[in-house]
Parts: sequence; structure tokens; C-alpha cells
Amino acid sequence: MSTRPDSLRRLMNPNSIAVIGASDRPGSLGHRTMQNLDGFTGQLWPINPRLEWISAHRCHPAIADLPGVPDCAILAVPAAAVEAELQACADLGVGGCVVFASGYAELADPDGAARQARLAGIARAAGMRLLGPNTTGFARFATGAHAGFAEFPGGVAPGQAGIALISQSGAMGLALAQSARHGTGLSHVMTCGNSADVDVADLVVCAAQDPEARAIALLFEGIAAPERLVAAIAAAGKPVAVFRLGASAPGQAAVRWHTGTDPQPGFDWNGQFAGAGAVLVAEPEHLIETAVFLAKMRGCPPRPMPRVAILSSSGGSGILAADRAVAAGLALAEPGAATVEALKAALPAFASARNPCDATAQATADPAMLTRCAGLLLDDPAVDALVLPWGKAWDNGQFAALSELAAAANKPFAVVWLSQWLEGPGAAAIEAAPNLALFRSMASCMAALAAWGRG
Amino acid sequence: MSTRPDSLRRLMNPNSIAVIGASDRPGSLGHRTMQNLDGFTGQLWPINPRLEWISAHRCHPAIADLPGVPDCAILAVPAAAVEAELQACADLGVGGCVVFASGYAELADPDGAARQARLAGIARAAGMRLLGPNTTGFARFATGAHAGFAEFPGGVAPGQAGIALISQSGAMGLALAQSARHGTGLSHVMTCGNSADVDVADLVVCAAQDPEARAIALLFEGIAAPERLVAAIAAAGKPVAVFRLGASAPGQAAVRWHTGTDPQPGFDWNGQFAGAGAVLVAEPEHLIETAVFLAKMRGCPPRPMPRVAILSSSGGSGILAADRAVAAGLALAEPGAATVEALKAALPAFASARNPCDATAQATADPAMLTRCAGLLLDDPAVDALVLPWGKAWDNGQFAALSELAAAANKPFAVVWLSQWLEGPGAAAIEAAPNLALFRSMASCMAALAAWGRG
Repeated sequence: MSTRPDSLRRLMNPNSIAVIGASDRPGSLGHRTMQNLDGFTGQLWPINPRLEWISAHRCHPAIADLPGVPDCAILAVPAAAVEAELQACADLGVGGCVVFASGYAELADPDGAARQARLAGIARAAGMRLLGPNTTGFARFATGAHAGFAEFPGGVAPGQAGIALISQSGAMGLALAQSARHGTGLSHVMTCGNSADVDVADLVVCAAQDPEARAIALLFEGIAAPERLVAAIAAAGKPVAVFRLGASAPGQAAVRWHTGTDPQPGFDWNGQFAGAGAVLVAEPEHLIETAVFLAKMRGCPPRPMPRVAILSSSGGSGILAADRAVAAGLALAEPGAATVEALKAALPAFASARNPCDATAQATADPAMLTRCAGLLLDDPAVDALVLPWGKAWDNGQFAALSELAAAANKPFAVVWLSQWLEGPGAAAIEAAPNLALFRSMASCMAALAAWGRG
Repeated sequence: MSTRPDSLRRLMNPNSIAVIGASDRPGSLGHRTMQNLDGFTGQLWPINPRLEWISAHRCHPAIADLPGVPDCAILAVPAAAVEAELQACADLGVGGCVVFASGYAELADPDGAARQARLAGIARAAGMRLLGPNTTGFARFATGAHAGFAEFPGGVAPGQAGIALISQSGAMGLALAQSARHGTGLSHVMTCGNSADVDVADLVVCAAQDPEARAIALLFEGIAAPERLVAAIAAAGKPVAVFRLGASAPGQAAVRWHTGTDPQPGFDWNGQFAGAGAVLVAEPEHLIETAVFLAKMRGCPPRPMPRVAILSSSGGSGILAADRAVAAGLALAEPGAATVEALKAALPAFASARNPCDATAQATADPAMLTRCAGLLLDDPAVDALVLPWGKAWDNGQFAALSELAAAANKPFAVVWLSQWLEGPGAAAIEAAPNLALFRSMASCMAALAAWGRG
């Protein structure tokens, strides 16, 4: 523990985890949590007075009986048992606790808020951190510290950009985490539920400190001290993409009922976030792809008002790209005369060497031609970023080569997946390419490029 | 032919198809077209002077040698051979021709426009229709009339709502048609390329007349006579969802270069389309799901300013729904006191019976409870439409029951797929439900509900 004086770090990046209420009953929270922790590389201690073993893990009857003090204790017990177990953890010097139980400040009932305040008081008095209550927990995939009951897929393949996904709402976190099913690399999924102690600002600090995360995707609805969140984002030292729920009056009313949090409608969220360098996305479905873009493009020096080149394989998709570039405040690049001549030589006679450059259906039939054109555009000093609208769902095998071109030019290269076969075979190849960003919306792509340009 | 005096109907809903340039060489346009026509229920005549058979189909050396006059002739021949073949078809009395070849008005070269004008002249003089040039063709799946070389998946399962997808751009049409890969029912995919004769207005007329199509999804960039398109939409007698490419000045420039069409920037596209009853979508990725919604909800009487009830399985997703409902100009329904009491009885104690009604994670664990709550909300006269944000990618088996409730109430019921596992197993179950509409964007869902309300 001497390497982890910080209790927040002990909780969120633990060497040892105790599961209070660990169970062998399929479907129970205590069983699902044990299953999620199957790959944990640290010390795992199930606590259950009626069982000797759960799988290969020896049970202990109570937290006080453990041979050591866990960094993290998960309370997979009913609300009625939470207070006593939390106190036992505090007495022992546990780093932090995760509390799944609901029935606290999210209730209309004022007793719920009082119960939550008691939990926070116990933790605070002991210098112990508390995640929850009413949380699905968190996962730090590098060490298999999946301290939650939800089915968070995740993990980062070698060479992939790991995203730390932070969501106040457990269910929205789970929904977004499912991007891992089609190849997005997630280093963390962190949810904080009612935020009695640890809130989204703390989670941003955690993700900022953890080298496993290359960028942060944050979805939240409210925080008691918004300026702490702004400060955490400003100090993160890595890209942060944000979506805020509760922009409308009825949405804010729902934030109050459903989370017991004040949505702080008087706070200048957009201005403050933009000032802190966060990239605000327009829709939640743009959040993960924008964070991945920011992570993959982190090495590219930003350019104010980036000039975008569009390389399409159809007239229609080039027109769409031009429309959305202008709407996002981007300029269309004007490639130099030498580039245009070289493009003309590379392209079929009936193609267009202007911007948008339409390589026609030959772009998919002749990957070498497409790669040649992409290289010419990326090498042109008049081009700051390249966008490739992609309407075919197949993988023609050229994405690795395109990614290398982007790395060599050190410029953003985004592929916009126009196919409504949303998870067609080529998508995973683009996600796996270290220097290609995949978007499923042209508007989202151009907004992200504009944000990258602002630096 | 006496049942089809209309040459457009002969071309687009043919009883007989000739393929000029039919081939047995894999990868060639003539071979891909023959493969696509494998399931054609009418008479198929490959034309090739050097082959006796292509698969089970007897070849004829020239169009004039056929034992009958084809309704539709596909010219899968190089541009240099098109004029002569088109004249031969005109001389024979063919209903209409599909011309794949490019190198016409889409070129900067004025000779291209002149060549295209000659093709149009040949067709016009003979009263024969012409689709193309520079088109990928069309598919009418009910009869297997897949008169194109592109891989358009499609078809309508029994009970499914068939969508006619119309796209000026072949590549964008192909991209959108791939929605069939995850369960969207497509009755037609129709592309018109350079529109030398048949244009998107004609295709809207075709789709309007064809009972296989329950709604029309239209994507286009320009048309010489916009008022013809507006009139076709106004007279369609079925819902039309539209996305227009080329809203920006650089986009319009690209329309001119890439299609040789005038984008008519002075025309009041949005006002005219809205006046004709079309539903304009904000992004191309919203087009197909909006058309499916309109087709499935066609029987529900429209309500101006619809009052929307939201049934969520998490606080966060309910907040998002409330935010986007308000942004689309919708009102949040205020369920009656009896409904609220019945909801409270059905819901877990820690859930919220307000609107958004948060059934909590129990909604996914207890499908019967979710179905009960959905029924209560749909039956309330204060509720005009129901939205269910859905964050889990799984199919809990309740979608068929939910669809039946929507049919009984005769009110729109939209499920918004928040999972980033975009094609997770539950999505196909929702698509297959006859009275549930699936959206992958909350903004798209609420915009479609607002459009439905306007009637």
C-alpha cells in the first residue's frame, strides 16, 4: 500500500478486492460480481459466512477475518446491511467501498437522502472512499478489476487506443460500453450512481492519472460542485469528450427526481467545458467515436480552422462531406497544382480530382489507387486533415496501409462509415487501425475535426 | 403488355428482362447482373453473340433475335456500344432501358453532356424510358427484378413494412440498402444516376403506385424540375422521408461537377417538401429508420403537438428522452391519476411513476412488469405516443407483446436503441415487430414523432 497513499487510487486501481455478499447463486449480484472478477490479477477475497469456497477462491466469514486489508471492498448486500458492513470496512482501513444497493437519494422520500448522508459520513470519518450507492460499479480492464455486476465488455488490444468511459448513469454506461462488442478499446468503464462521495470529477482525475487511458469519454447529468469537474477536465492532460444529459427543463426535473442531484441549470456548462478543453458532442451516439478519434489523433498538432480534403468513392458521399464540413465551420482544402496533376494521373479518366475528390467506384475496386490518392492528399501542405466517406461494408484490406499513411503525415484521417450495415466486416478493420478514426455520422466526424483544430 | 401500357411501369416492374452484354466472366458487370437476376420470376433473356448459355438461360446473339419484346433491357456494355444498342431497343419497342456506362454528363467535358443528350433523344423519339446512364440500376424484390450490378440486399418478410429506397446516387443507395442486413424490409432499391430521362420524381411515382412499398425513403442531390418532385411526393398517398444532399455552397458545387445536375439553390426545398407532406430528416443515417417508423405507424391517426410518454429502464435514458422531446417541439404527456396509481402498483418501490417513468433495471429483469407499464401508458388518453429507450442489446422476448399493445392502442411506439452494440441481438426482434419502430438516435426518434404529429 505504500505505493498507493491515495485512497481514491486504492479504490479504483486496487491490488486486493473483497466481495461482501459474494455468492454462488447464479443471477445474484454477488455471483455476477464474482464472475466479473474472474480475471482479476490481484488478491480476491469473497466474504460469505455460509460458504467455504466460491470457485477457486476461499471465502471468509467477515471482512475482519481477512488476512489483509483490501484496497477495495464491494458491498453486494441489500440496503439494510450496507451501513454495518460499510462501518466494518471503515474500521479495518479499507481504501474504498463500492455500494450497489439502491433506495437512497434517488428516492423522492427524504429518508433516502438521510440514509445516503449517513453512508457518506461513515466513509468520510475514516478517510475511506465510497463509490455509489446505486451504482453498477467500475471496471479497470488491464488488471481485471471489474468491481461491478453489469456486463461491461472491454479491454484494449495491443496498439489500440484505450478509452476510459465515465458515466454517472450505470445503464447509459453499460449501453455505451457495448461499443467494445465491435472493436472499440475500453481501458475503463466507471459509473458512480448517486455520487455520495466519489463523483464524475473524481473519476476524471482517476482516468487522467491512469496511463491505460489515452482519452476520456464522459456522460453525466449533474454534479454538486461543477467547478471541480471543470478543473479535473482542464488538468486531465489527455483529451476529454463530453455529453451532458439534462439540457432541457423537463430533463433537469428528471435529473432531480432520478438521481437526487442538482443539474445546476444556472451554470455555464458549455462555456466552462469548452474553456477547459473538453470536446462537447451533440448526441450520445457520437461520444465514443469522438473519444477514439481524439485518442488516435493526439499526436497530430492542432490547426485552427483545419482545411479538410475529402476523398470519396461516389459523388453523393463527397457532397455530404462537403455539406457537413461547412456546417462545422471547416474549410475545404485546395490541393496544390502538383497534387491535382498527380491525382489526375492516378484516377480514372471519369473521376474528379477536385475537392471533394471523387475516385468513383474504382476506389473500392482498386485499393492501390485509393491508397495512392490518399497519400497524395495527406502529403499536400494545403491539406490539414483527410476524410474518406465509405459506403461499402466490406474490408478490401487497404485500411492498414491507409493508417500508415496517416501516421507518416501526422494528420487526422477519418473514415466515415455510411453503410447502414452498421457493424459490417470492414468496420472492425478500421477500428483496429491505429491512425484511422471511424465515425458512423458525417456530422459527428466534422464536429470532431473542428474540435481537434481548436486544440 | 396490354396490362402495362405505361412504359415507366414496364421498365420498373417488368415481366421480361433482356441483359445486353450478359457474361459468364466473374466480376464483370454482365455477370454480376445475371447473378442478381437469378431469382427473377419473369422471362430472362441474356444477349451475347459468343455464348449459347449462361447458367440455365439460353443466350441470343442480339436483341432483335429474341422471341419477344422485353419490357426492360439492361445495357451492360461499354459506353462506346451504348448508342447502337439503345437504338436497337428503341426500334424493337422495348419498354425501357437501364444504362450502366459512365462517361456522360457527369464529366466536366461538354462532349459528355452531348453524348447523354443523344441517348435521351433516342429514347424519347421511341417513347421508350431510360434509366441512367451512370446508374447502378434498380431492384424490385417481390419479383426478383434486380436490374443492376450492385449488391443490393433486400426483400420484405411476411408482415413486415416494405420500404422503397430511392437514391440518385448509386453508392449512397447501396450504403443505405445495407440496412437490410440487420432486418429492415426493403421492397425496392432504385437509383437513377445521371437522370437523362427517368429521375427521382419518376421513381417516387413508381414507388407510390406499387403496393409492395408501404413508405418511401428518398435521398437525392438535384433534379432539373424540382416542382415535378414536389408534386410526386404530394400525390404519393404514402409516407415519404427525404434527405437532400448539397445544402451548402461547396456541396452544390460538387453536385454540379459530379452529377451534371443543377442543385437549384434558389428553390425553397424545405418549405416545398414540408408542404407536400414529406418528412425531412436531419442526417442520412436517420433516413431509413424514419421511413420504417412512418410505414409502421401509418394507421395511427396523427395528433398535432403529440404528448409523449417515456418509459425508461434507467434515469439517464429517461432524461435524454425528455431533453430530445422538448428539442423536437413535443410535449411530455401527463398521465392521469389512475394511470399513475396503477404504475406505482406495478413498479418497484424505488422506481418513478412520473414522466419520464423510470422502471429501473427491473424493466429488463422483469419483462412482464415492463409490458404492464407500457400498456398502462398506451391506454391513457393523455398519452399520444410512447418512447422506450433501450440500453441493453439483448432480446428479452418481450418485443412481440409490446408490439401487440401498440397495435391495440393504435398509437406510435418507438424503441430507441442506445446500446453501442449497434446490431446486438435484440435489434432484429424490434425490427421484426410490426408495430414497434426502432431508432438508433433519440434525436431522430423525437423528430419523427413530431413529423407524424403534423400528419
